[in-house]
Amino acid sequence: MTQPDTTPTDPLALAQALIRAPSVTPLDAGALDTLQAALTTLGFACQRMPFGEVDNLYARLGTAEPVFCFAGHTDVVPAGQEAAWSAAPFAGEIHGEALIGRGAVDMKGAIAAFVAATARYLEAQGKPAGSIAFLITGDEEGPAINGTKKMLQALEAQGERFTHCLVGEPTNRAVLGDMVKIGRRGSLNGIITVTGRQGHVAYPDRAINPIGALMEVLHALTARRLDEGNEHFQPSNLEVTSVDVGNPAHNVIPGEARAKFNIRFNTEQDGEALKSWISDEIARVQQGFGGTISADLTVTGDAFQTPEGPFTALLAEAIQARTGIAPELSTSGGTSDARFIKDYAPVAEFGLVGASMHQIDEQTPVADIKVLTEIYHDVLTRYFEVFA
Amino acid sequence: MTQPDTTPTDPLALAQALIRAPSVTPLDAGALDTLQAALTTLGFACQRMPFGEVDNLYARLGTAEPVFCFAGHTDVVPAGQEAAWSAAPFAGEIHGEALIGRGAVDMKGAIAAFVAATARYLEAQGKPAGSIAFLITGDEEGPAINGTKKMLQALEAQGERFTHCLVGEPTNRAVLGDMVKIGRRGSLNGIITVTGRQGHVAYPDRAINPIGALMEVLHALTARRLDEGNEHFQPSNLEVTSVDVGNPAHNVIPGEARAKFNIRFNTEQDGEALKSWISDEIARVQQGFGGTISADLTVTGDAFQTPEGPFTALLAEAIQARTGIAPELSTSGGTSDARFIKDYAPVAEFGLVGASMHQIDEQTPVADIKVLTEIYHDVLTRYFEVFA
Repeated sequence: MTQPDTTPTDPLALAQALIRAPSVTPLDAGALDTLQAALTTLGFACQRMPFGEVDNLYARLGTAEPVFCFAGHTDVVPAGQEAAWSAAPFAGEIHGEALIGRGAVDMKGAIAAFVAATARYLEAQGKPAGSIAFLITGDEEGPAINGTKKMLQALEAQGERFTHCLVGEPTNRAVLGDMVKIGRRGSLNGIITVTGRQGHVAYPDRAINPIGALMEVLHALTARRLDEGNEHFQPSNLEVTSVDVGNPAHNVIPGEARAKFNIRFNTEQDGEALKSWISDEIARVQQGFGGTISADLTVTGDAFQTPEGPFTALLAEAIQARTGIAPELSTSGGTSDARFIKDYAPVAEFGLVGASMHQIDEQTPVADIKVLTEIYHDVLTRYFEVFA
Repeated sequence: MTQPDTTPTDPLALAQALIRAPSVTPLDAGALDTLQAALTTLGFACQRMPFGEVDNLYARLGTAEPVFCFAGHTDVVPAGQEAAWSAAPFAGEIHGEALIGRGAVDMKGAIAAFVAATARYLEAQGKPAGSIAFLITGDEEGPAINGTKKMLQALEAQGERFTHCLVGEPTNRAVLGDMVKIGRRGSLNGIITVTGRQGHVAYPDRAINPIGALMEVLHALTARRLDEGNEHFQPSNLEVTSVDVGNPAHNVIPGEARAKFNIRFNTEQDGEALKSWISDEIARVQQGFGGTISADLTVTGDAFQTPEGPFTALLAEAIQARTGIAPELSTSGGTSDARFIKDYAPVAEFGLVGASMHQIDEQTPVADIKVLTEIYHDVLTRYFEVFA
């Protein structure tokens, strides 16, 4: 285990140390060792929770309730074209006012701020009036099978309970403080395959064109406005993402056609109910169609929303106190591991500005890491005042 | 030039000699030499008319009008899996009662019958009461650019005129005599390309999905019943033959989508009018669509129909006299070089039974070649009685 040359109260040095571990999913490359060393220094009891080829870390300080849990991931997406970066993506260099590197905002910078905020809280308070936990996975950017989901199952079996959870995803759109996420849309992937009978275009009676039936299904699926959204969610939306036949001949009616689609849906919908609806539409088109229509439907996450209340209020207050901005409590954007956590505890997400995430020259202002540390520190202070 | 060991009055031996030339488009492989030798023996003046990589043969006997023209092609489609054939595809073998080989029915068997019928007619009549011509291309199964179309243009420039033309395509569906073709549907190929803007499915407002606009265009094109057909034609028909996006990612809205379609249309339609209609539908969908829709539309042949009259009547009578069947005068099926000939002379098509054309074990009953020769002989006799 490598002991980094950092003090847990310095978020910038810790962020740099974490970026220097090229932990592209499923590799860890020493990132969790660096984090564990810092948490051990602070007195946390740490356990590594490897599943499959992925390593994960759970750490807890204190035994009492309430349990405030910081959640996040140390894995990152690949650097892409390294030559296109202004600085080496795994060097953790500071250029001018910005820390550049893969994971700077998604989300090693936030994890460093978690640790530094905790260190300052403990320095000020001695010990928490409850417990502080860290739920850190190495499989969020990948399949997300051997990470947070399995950790939560195993920890529940150990008797671990979480009162509230804060995920450090880069939730802000333009400036630090502009957005907290208090839920996420659900996601459903579908593949529809229509099999007809190949033939010559001059003799359509002898063939069964699968494209017509496929278009009819897609028309039915796209024609329905799923809902109007609600107070916390934009309307649910279906996008056809690909249609593929691959028939090179102009004079041949093809034998098979396939389409893929994705639904991002809000809390007005239910994943299983959407699957039933799609299956019903397919069954309707199947009637009177001479070929066969099959569908492969997968709900990768259901929609959820953490109700507004004291927890979301103290988050927003801490953010506004440090940035002067009243954050939007939003449910927009892609999925995150919050979709797993919401089954175990009320969860919210707040981290750095996401604009450069997954891109060349991912970067954050150094000042943002410092302010984020202050916000997390303030959150811890307010949290135990409210819930202890 | 190879002189085949055949007499022009024996259609079977000539058909075998033609099949033994593996004249897969654009190759000739000696097929036209074999044919030219037979026609030269009969006194025809022959001229080779090469265009591009294709060779073609025009032959004429006599100088007077009327000019009765046999038309066809010596090129063939590829054999496909040779191992799957019962006999080598270019051996011209007779198995039991059948001549097997690529081109046996499409259409070397018919060309051999053309020659043998002419030989017998000349044997009986000495010389035609007008002219007999042969318009034979090596580019019917391929792009059809360097064949019949260019021959007709060049021959017109030479002052050649045709009174009537008979194409030897395999027109019969089940038994010899069941179908004469007196026209063909037109054909229009279209490619529609829709360009939108790629993006993440979680942020549909920032992307423009091209698939929706493409589906809307295809829906408009397929929803319209073009016509009900007429006395001689089945209804015009549009088939979407491919739709292709090729987007591997479930969470990405693609940037481009493409579809191909084909219209087979009858004499109720006009190729240019169909193109206008399609362009109008695209313009309608383009309105209010943020991306761009473009179309590549090609009419490869307009619909035509040779009016029923003395020419079609004598054809039907000759067929019924030899087979006992009153042939259907049809306009069904795929395109043929008749689409080019119809601009120069009234044209009809009659040949062998097409069931095995383009397939493994293409074959014709030997008896059919003999009866077809008798029919063509009878046609020549009746033709010059009626039109000379």
